[in-house]
Amino acid sequence: MAPHPAARDLRDDAAVLTVPVGQELVVTKDMLVEGVHYTPACPPRDVAWKLVAVNVSDLAGMGGRPLGLLTGIGLPAHRADDWIEAFIAGLAHACERFGCPLLGGDTVRLEGAAVLSATALGNVPSGQAVSRRGARPGDAVWVSGTIGDAGLGLMMALGRAEDVPTLVRRYRRPLPRIALGLSLRGLASGGMDVSDGLLLDARRLAAASGVAMSIDLASVPLSNEARALLPPGDAGLLQAATAGDDYELLFTTPAMLAPKVLEIAKAAGVRVTRIGTVEPGEGLLVRGLSGEALRPERLGYEH
Amino acid sequence: MAPHPAARDLRDDAAVLTVPVGQELVVTKDMLVEGVHYTPACPPRDVAWKLVAVNVSDLAGMGGRPLGLLTGIGLPAHRADDWIEAFIAGLAHACERFGCPLLGGDTVRLEGAAVLSATALGNVPSGQAVSRRGARPGDAVWVSGTIGDAGLGLMMALGRAEDVPTLVRRYRRPLPRIALGLSLRGLASGGMDVSDGLLLDARRLAAASGVAMSIDLASVPLSNEARALLPPGDAGLLQAATAGDDYELLFTTPAMLAPKVLEIAKAAGVRVTRIGTVEPGEGLLVRGLSGEALRPERLGYEH
Repeated sequence: MAPHPAARDLRDDAAVLTVPVGQELVVTKDMLVEGVHYTPACPPRDVAWKLVAVNVSDLAGMGGRPLGLLTGIGLPAHRADDWIEAFIAGLAHACERFGCPLLGGDTVRLEGAAVLSATALGNVPSGQAVSRRGARPGDAVWVSGTIGDAGLGLMMALGRAEDVPTLVRRYRRPLPRIALGLSLRGLASGGMDVSDGLLLDARRLAAASGVAMSIDLASVPLSNEARALLPPGDAGLLQAATAGDDYELLFTTPAMLAPKVLEIAKAAGVRVTRIGTVEPGEGLLVRGLSGEALRPERLGYEH
Repeated sequence: MAPHPAARDLRDDAAVLTVPVGQELVVTKDMLVEGVHYTPACPPRDVAWKLVAVNVSDLAGMGGRPLGLLTGIGLPAHRADDWIEAFIAGLAHACERFGCPLLGGDTVRLEGAAVLSATALGNVPSGQAVSRRGARPGDAVWVSGTIGDAGLGLMMALGRAEDVPTLVRRYRRPLPRIALGLSLRGLASGGMDVSDGLLLDARRLAAASGVAMSIDLASVPLSNEARALLPPGDAGLLQAATAGDDYELLFTTPAMLAPKVLEIAKAAGVRVTRIGTVEPGEGLLVRGLSGEALRPERLGYEH
């Protein structure tokens, strides 16, 4: 039952760290299960990247600055040493890339599929965490980057479509929007990261804020690669807006702050697009290209 | 793939909390795998208790005051609703009992055995965390409570011995020594919680501090129930001192502080026993009842 020697570094019982004065701690925990959240054929360095990235993305969604990460690694007893070595190297690489030092964790051997969890810690100035609860009627709804790329990348990773490397990479190596998240402190009225589908997460943001939200599919930002592959019209836009694994930021701001939002996004090196409006009431209103309300069968990955 | 409704409470993306000024954060992460760390027949409330307790015990070993807990719960898709309900209720109960609020987490469905992880956060005054690195030659070595009870309880839980309820309970419902840990701040030169066997953990403490440690088996504290069941002589003492799951505190202090240690332990309502001495050099010296050095084949659970 001995873990791989390289995994010993992850077995420290506990870590001690300092939260700067005037700052609050934000903490998040996300899990990945082999065969569910990634394919068994996924390269171990990409698995490690994704484990770190999805947790850091939760911090980014709250405006948190990464402080550190703990991992809980459950691997099948028969897992090859070179897989484990590459995975550990990948963890170190991703943690360094996101400025989120590896603080410790636990490693166990399993009978079934690999089960990976991580806890990410970050800090925000007291009272400035971006939350899901602050969206107000009249606010503009924004999303960063492009939507639906990772969903197409997943199809490719599953062998159901021909590989387009940039899209596979968007699925396997999501880039948490840390810099944008930091800039949204004190600017966004509400926000979160998009992991289960833009429409589903928009409905969750609206519900947590006690408001309704209207989303214009025509405004949903697509990459050129995605546009070339998606079906035309509302069908393709719905496919993109209900695919998961985007790890972009969905946020709301007072509409009059639009110029400021575009300015800080430019400074953060990320495209942002206004995709809708916060309304009084409750629920999600999805408008298609013709402006008519659509009733999508599903909004994203409910799990 | 929908989780049990009761598990929804564990799916918040992130939590925000305040670390008091002048305090550092201590963070720890431990996992439990069904069939490895607990038997599949273990009542779900006891599984939940143990998941919380083993993590809080790591905090106690560092002198940390519990701030909160995040869970990562991976359960087989066929797990019965009433098991899940009892488990969730048990989590809430244990968190309340240890003053360690449940902050959130993630829940996933698996194919194999249940895989449970938790991250516990605590705080200590800056610079006062009890660490594994501070034991100095001449220091006294102490342990709290009694040793080996949980190891006997495990045999009973596995059906290999007749049940003694107090010992089964020691295995299934360990009591982290939170109050004692708090009192050891600024008093213990080194310390940790004992989870893998007293002798193995003593060797780890010595190694981390760059010292040797001698342990007198004759001084290892046994409960009356354990004494009645263990083989007589060194064999029984070695069995107790190499069994795991004690979740007691192992710590060192300057020898002259012995009266103070006994005083704070009494105030914390926990028995403490001096079991050895820190020596210059490296390694672990185990003395049997005759005073002669023993060479045990194993020191505890290496994993």
